[in-house]
Amino acid sequence: MGWNQNTVTDMLGISYPIFQAPMAGGITTPELISETSNSGGLGNLGAGYMMPEEIKSAIKEIRELTDKPFGVNLFVPNKEITFSEEKRSEALNHLSGYKAELMLEDDIQLTDKNYHTLYEQQLEVVLSTKVPICSFTFGIPDENVIKDLKKQGTIVIGTATNVKEALELEAAGVDMIVAQGSEAGGHRGTFHEEASGLIGSMALIPQIADAVKLPVIAAGGIMDARGIVAAFILGAKGVQLGTAFLPCRESGAHPIYKEALLNSTEDTTTLTKAFSGKLARGINNRFIKETENSTDSILPYPIQNDLTGAIRKQAAKLKNKEFMSLWAGQGLRLANRTSVKGLMGELTEETSQIFHSNH
Amino acid sequence: MGWNQNTVTDMLGISYPIFQAPMAGGITTPELISETSNSGGLGNLGAGYMMPEEIKSAIKEIRELTDKPFGVNLFVPNKEITFSEEKRSEALNHLSGYKAELMLEDDIQLTDKNYHTLYEQQLEVVLSTKVPICSFTFGIPDENVIKDLKKQGTIVIGTATNVKEALELEAAGVDMIVAQGSEAGGHRGTFHEEASGLIGSMALIPQIADAVKLPVIAAGGIMDARGIVAAFILGAKGVQLGTAFLPCRESGAHPIYKEALLNSTEDTTTLTKAFSGKLARGINNRFIKETENSTDSILPYPIQNDLTGAIRKQAAKLKNKEFMSLWAGQGLRLANRTSVKGLMGELTEETSQIFHSNH
Repeated sequence: MGWNQNTVTDMLGISYPIFQAPMAGGITTPELISETSNSGGLGNLGAGYMMPEEIKSAIKEIRELTDKPFGVNLFVPNKEITFSEEKRSEALNHLSGYKAELMLEDDIQLTDKNYHTLYEQQLEVVLSTKVPICSFTFGIPDENVIKDLKKQGTIVIGTATNVKEALELEAAGVDMIVAQGSEAGGHRGTFHEEASGLIGSMALIPQIADAVKLPVIAAGGIMDARGIVAAFILGAKGVQLGTAFLPCRESGAHPIYKEALLNSTEDTTTLTKAFSGKLARGINNRFIKETENSTDSILPYPIQNDLTGAIRKQAAKLKNKEFMSLWAGQGLRLANRTSVKGLMGELTEETSQIFHSNH
Repeated sequence: MGWNQNTVTDMLGISYPIFQAPMAGGITTPELISETSNSGGLGNLGAGYMMPEEIKSAIKEIRELTDKPFGVNLFVPNKEITFSEEKRSEALNHLSGYKAELMLEDDIQLTDKNYHTLYEQQLEVVLSTKVPICSFTFGIPDENVIKDLKKQGTIVIGTATNVKEALELEAAGVDMIVAQGSEAGGHRGTFHEEASGLIGSMALIPQIADAVKLPVIAAGGIMDARGIVAAFILGAKGVQLGTAFLPCRESGAHPIYKEALLNSTEDTTTLTKAFSGKLARGINNRFIKETENSTDSILPYPIQNDLTGAIRKQAAKLKNKEFMSLWAGQGLRLANRTSVKGLMGELTEETSQIFHSNH
């Protein structure tokens, strides 16, 4: 059995155990997803922030572009979100300070979004459209959710950043586990103490693979065939790449964002809560530095994410990368301007070459 | 050419490109070093904190126990160390608070050690004893130092934590580069901005390997044959393991420290300056937490290291691991109680097995 024919490819009905990471915020266009799945990998929709009708329409589009399996990723909501009135006004005050510079028309305001209701509506779409694969980040979905999804044939994937989280996901009944190393771009999937979830892939993959019986999908720092083979040697049965897909033609990343990715180096990313209230890795910029320096001006996730939405949107419009969330992993020097087909072709060919060469 | 016959083994005259990391603070006993070298790897003396006569006598002992090559590691001193009188008294005050609890006889005091003189004396020993391999951490040795060492046949190794540092070391004329991933236990070798040196091995190894012509030795999170093969696939020509050697019978680690290593998990380490003033990864404990929480009470390296020396020593005597520096990498679950011969035998056999198996 070759590297591209294992329990993961069998369970998912795909040709190569290579996942395009479900990056949220408009990155994972139906084109990015369908091209990945059409190339034999698994395209994934980053639907965590999406409204139910947006998810429904994205799924429809994906299905028009591919008959291959694809995944949808959802964010398990926090049990509760609390913050003081004082902290609220400090955060609003800090963010409002950018109003003039960014020429924002509206005031920075809290919304009255109900995140639990949103999550339930998102789940309803995943169920009603019989999505083949559903992955979760930021927590463990309820027993009933997992049961309902599995009953209709949906494969359920959880995200762990340490062994404890992986064991809990396995006990909850998920089918596979994404092991997210500290190199990964974007949000940390950690749902236990924040500090417990920053293990590098070299250490994380074998320890999770040893601890669980489920297949492990390695994520974090994997950019090319070398990373794929290394992850398999360490015990993974599949890999998930985010940063490598970001500069692809089909990705929905803003041209300024793609440009930043291609011109940045491995030492330019930082971990920050400035944009969303939850720890995430991205290219350092003025907004991160100023917000991190402004003590107590960051509200909890996802409130902070809603609050900074207008700033990020306007910054993109103004092509001002100093106020955009430029999520990126630590493998930045290995990012290339390419197409999904080009990337997948290179990854699969070179991975096969490494596996078949005599070391 | 197999994995155990490459430019690193050729240059160093060793059988396997496996380095026992030069851990400072009495860990790297002549027994640990000589057993590693006698097993075909490269034993390394962590001599950064050692007095010249201690280094001389350790080298003599090592040479009585092995005729194989070994290395000595030195710390390149800071250009200058400055701190305010206020910060000094805050630090002394914080540390003195433990005097009663730890039953310390003497006051916590600053020494008038000259670190540059110490370094020069250490170098003199390395030169006069014609040590086969000399590695450096925390900076780039002066041009003349590298020249003198190379002239007498000593192989010079530098430590990099990002691509920029690796390129600078290469330009300075070192022979090999240790690429230290963020998983690594103990001190970060970073000599540029601290935040630029926390790249996970999965991302760091291929990016440094692509950037330099010199052989790269991967360090950080490697605990077993899986890690060794993964590092080679990612572009390394050798590996350096620290945490895996720590619980060995021959290591000088305190029994309480070994016990802590064997009973800790991957999510228990943290990065702290509390013990030495320089960022290092170790198992979290009371001293780290309380010192980190006590704002502005940490002096720069190596002053803080000298200051906490008495506390660490006394804690070891009292078998109180809450005040000992329990340096450890993130692969902790893979640590085993063994001997150097046992560890090296397992590493080399299993690495060969993985390389020769058909994937």
